[in-house]
Amino acid sequence: MPKTPDSSRRSEHSRQAILAATRALISEVGYEKVAIEAIAARAGVGKQTIYRWWPSKGAVIFDSILALSEDADGRDLALPDTGDLEADLKRVMRATVAEFADPDFEKPIRALTAEVINDAGLAAQYRDKLARPVDEAKKARLRGGQRAGQLAADADLDLVLEVLYAPLFQRWLQRSGPLTPEYADALVEAALRAFRPG
Amino acid sequence: MPKTPDSSRRSEHSRQAILAATRALISEVGYEKVAIEAIAARAGVGKQTIYRWWPSKGAVIFDSILALSEDADGRDLALPDTGDLEADLKRVMRATVAEFADPDFEKPIRALTAEVINDAGLAAQYRDKLARPVDEAKKARLRGGQRAGQLAADADLDLVLEVLYAPLFQRWLQRSGPLTPEYADALVEAALRAFRPG
Repeated sequence: MPKTPDSSRRSEHSRQAILAATRALISEVGYEKVAIEAIAARAGVGKQTIYRWWPSKGAVIFDSILALSEDADGRDLALPDTGDLEADLKRVMRATVAEFADPDFEKPIRALTAEVINDAGLAAQYRDKLARPVDEAKKARLRGGQRAGQLAADADLDLVLEVLYAPLFQRWLQRSGPLTPEYADALVEAALRAFRPG
Repeated sequence: MPKTPDSSRRSEHSRQAILAATRALISEVGYEKVAIEAIAARAGVGKQTIYRWWPSKGAVIFDSILALSEDADGRDLALPDTGDLEADLKRVMRATVAEFADPDFEKPIRALTAEVINDAGLAAQYRDKLARPVDEAKKARLRGGQRAGQLAADADLDLVLEVLYAPLFQRWLQRSGPLTPEYADALVEAALRAFRPG
């Protein structure tokens, strides 16, 4: 162990502690009640440390969610590819539906979504940093399906993704129906029927 | 003109003034900056009048949007029915897309949606008072399409509505793509392909 403190490592440690504290507090008390003071206390840092790195509460929340996705990126963003588009999409959609049905997972995402709705600047950041890389990975798998003749060659892939994911997004966001494996399957089947090869 | 003041008429007048002031302020300054004080000043009533009728800012916002829909209900909630489901849905979806592309219309709805996301109680109220009556009117038209052989007889109509409307909802909410008449048409065509008869 070095005796000289490594200040950049200490900064990274504080940053991660702040992001983890933010996610924990969102899940425990909900976004509206999360205060910068509480994040600082939980992370063991001063309030000024947070304000030095982030301009607002919304920005800390955004980065706390983005950090989750960066962890995931490190592993693998690509969708499974067994050669069977329908089976692969059902596997992915069942996992996604299960995540959104899990309170610990969904609470921070719900908080971020509410922020994004009211803030056009944050919406642009969200699209560029979070949504677009994930969408590109999904589209790569859809292109494989097009080459295999399992999806119309002229399908608008942005529209395919919307037909596939937006119903789940809306049902989750508005709490308007059950999030079940059967629902995941039904969405995949509807999207593939809508964009079946000529 | 009666010389005796009609207190119930005055109350209704104040209620409508408060709801109109709320909608105007949401459009002008955005939900987060709307204050009960400003609503009261704009409506020409005391703050206590507002607190007597509504428990929270979220509740006033909700009723201000609901009042719009009640006006609409008074006229007609039913979808057009020319006998051609695709043409009728395109007409309705083009109008809906145009509304969501209009800043004056969309701002109060965006504010309400952000409220509904974070408040499960308000979400239930939203479903019962606003979403369900509108969805029932849409389903009545879809059933006509089923009888005419233009939509699969065994189609899950909740799922049909989600495939039709959720992509628009998501694209509008996340500002993730253009809201055009062509987009409206593409959604109708995708939904009808997904739920084509046998």
